[in-house]
Amino acid sequence: MENFADRLSADWREKDCFVCVGIDPILALLPDPVRDAALKKQPETLQAAAAAFAEFGKKVIDAVAPVAAAVKPQSAFFEMLGPEGMRAMRELIDHAHRAGLLVIADAKRGDIGPTAQAYAQAVIGSVQVGTNRFEPWEADAVTVNPYLGSDGILPFVAAAKEQGGGLFVLVKTSNKSSGELQDLVADGRPVYEHVAEWIADHAGDLLGSSGYSSLGAVVGATYPEQLARLRKLMPKNLFLIPGYGAQGGGAADVKPGLNADGLGAIVNASRSVIFAWRDKTWAATHKETEWTDAVADAARKMRDEINQVRR
Amino acid sequence: MENFADRLSADWREKDCFVCVGIDPILALLPDPVRDAALKKQPETLQAAAAAFAEFGKKVIDAVAPVAAAVKPQSAFFEMLGPEGMRAMRELIDHAHRAGLLVIADAKRGDIGPTAQAYAQAVIGSVQVGTNRFEPWEADAVTVNPYLGSDGILPFVAAAKEQGGGLFVLVKTSNKSSGELQDLVADGRPVYEHVAEWIADHAGDLLGSSGYSSLGAVVGATYPEQLARLRKLMPKNLFLIPGYGAQGGGAADVKPGLNADGLGAIVNASRSVIFAWRDKTWAATHKETEWTDAVADAARKMRDEINQVRR
Repeated sequence: MENFADRLSADWREKDCFVCVGIDPILALLPDPVRDAALKKQPETLQAAAAAFAEFGKKVIDAVAPVAAAVKPQSAFFEMLGPEGMRAMRELIDHAHRAGLLVIADAKRGDIGPTAQAYAQAVIGSVQVGTNRFEPWEADAVTVNPYLGSDGILPFVAAAKEQGGGLFVLVKTSNKSSGELQDLVADGRPVYEHVAEWIADHAGDLLGSSGYSSLGAVVGATYPEQLARLRKLMPKNLFLIPGYGAQGGGAADVKPGLNADGLGAIVNASRSVIFAWRDKTWAATHKETEWTDAVADAARKMRDEINQVRR
Repeated sequence: MENFADRLSADWREKDCFVCVGIDPILALLPDPVRDAALKKQPETLQAAAAAFAEFGKKVIDAVAPVAAAVKPQSAFFEMLGPEGMRAMRELIDHAHRAGLLVIADAKRGDIGPTAQAYAQAVIGSVQVGTNRFEPWEADAVTVNPYLGSDGILPFVAAAKEQGGGLFVLVKTSNKSSGELQDLVADGRPVYEHVAEWIADHAGDLLGSSGYSSLGAVVGATYPEQLARLRKLMPKNLFLIPGYGAQGGGAADVKPGLNADGLGAIVNASRSVIFAWRDKTWAATHKETEWTDAVADAARKMRDEINQVRR
């Protein structure tokens, strides 16, 4: 299996594309036609909601595929619909692959030993049952929480190595309260830098021929100074940069996350792209029935804005 | 809905019971009769493995119900079997409730804002679809990761308040590498104590009439000194103490996790109970066909050992 960083790197170099679109479906925010069709076809059940999520997600994928390198389904929203929700997420992962996109499962898993291994096998690896082997989620990469230390990360590294997958460890997250724990200063530097050092030290475990490592880091666009510092600490690790768009980060805020070669990161926007027609930027020019055009236009604008600061 | 801490407290006072049994099924370690029956009935599929997990888990629940207060299914092992695995986990949750046990879903979720809310709704809360309301997992409590700060915890507190549920925030975990991040010293005390202070400060949000709060903490039995210190810092919060048994903790190591009233904690063992017949302690007296007796005996021994140090 080709190294995940190399596969992403090919998108950077060949498609000039640094956009990741987060698929975070919320029933109340879906386009009326999509939600209504699903809820009318079946009674108002979790199955019906899952069908609406699958329909919505596939249309988002088709709309953004020409300008995105990856999609990032947020597993929480699918899990909240029970087993049918997980089935819908798997459908979307397959659909994204057919559309030529990489898939980062935003699961933020963190556990120890055999349990972390089980999560890794589920999301980016494979599971043996008797003589058969299955890939339950078949995502290309997964987000991982570092609170439990290396016991919680290394099983994901092992699975990534085996399957050509990747992982993005939470370093500095984009939310308001991220500093409460992550910014605590120990031995002269914040906790998130300790995590960053570990990740930089282990870059070689998943290094691709592109020079980038599939052992990546999540660093929010909402803290540009910290982003610049972390880029220097982890020059070879992929960055997944959330917080673009609805969370307030713009293209200029993202730039410090790129290396001098203009590469190294993938930038995620969720709500500002997938619910674009609800935003005043797009609502004036796009009716709700044309919501997929608004999604495509928002993703294209994001790609162009990022490419402008890259040059 | 009655407060979770009050429900657990009733088990302490009426049943003298502080045992939680972790349900962490691993296909290769299941009793041969259970695994073989499931894999023979269907081809070697994820569905067949899920059926084996459900069968195994139900028998474990029946065996430990007389002496346990709760079971703690580890969601990773069910997720690795895809949607069918999640269905098996839900079956076990229902079965445990029918057996009079509380259920702590060991999911270690951690995310922000609407995403944390989605996880909370999925695991301990409810989901609205049109005019219908569903409880996808229907667990009584859930484990939560604190790396993202209060944004990642408060949505679980809100869901717990609404449904009479509980949560256990990871403070000091039982694994070997837990110190890498958790023991870093900031402002004169380790990171895990910062988390503990937050939890103690918010105990009032979910305080029951028992005097205990359903906002709990995970503190490993493998670090008894830290356990004693954390008990003082968080006198009103429930403790979930993993690491008993296979991970090396014994009854004496657990004692510091109890308050002077002999209450306040629930102690978890997984492998040493659910795979008891594989252990030399029980293998001599229990054949594999009598594996449920070994499970019952191991759980009873654990209860007795804990009750001995409590007095």
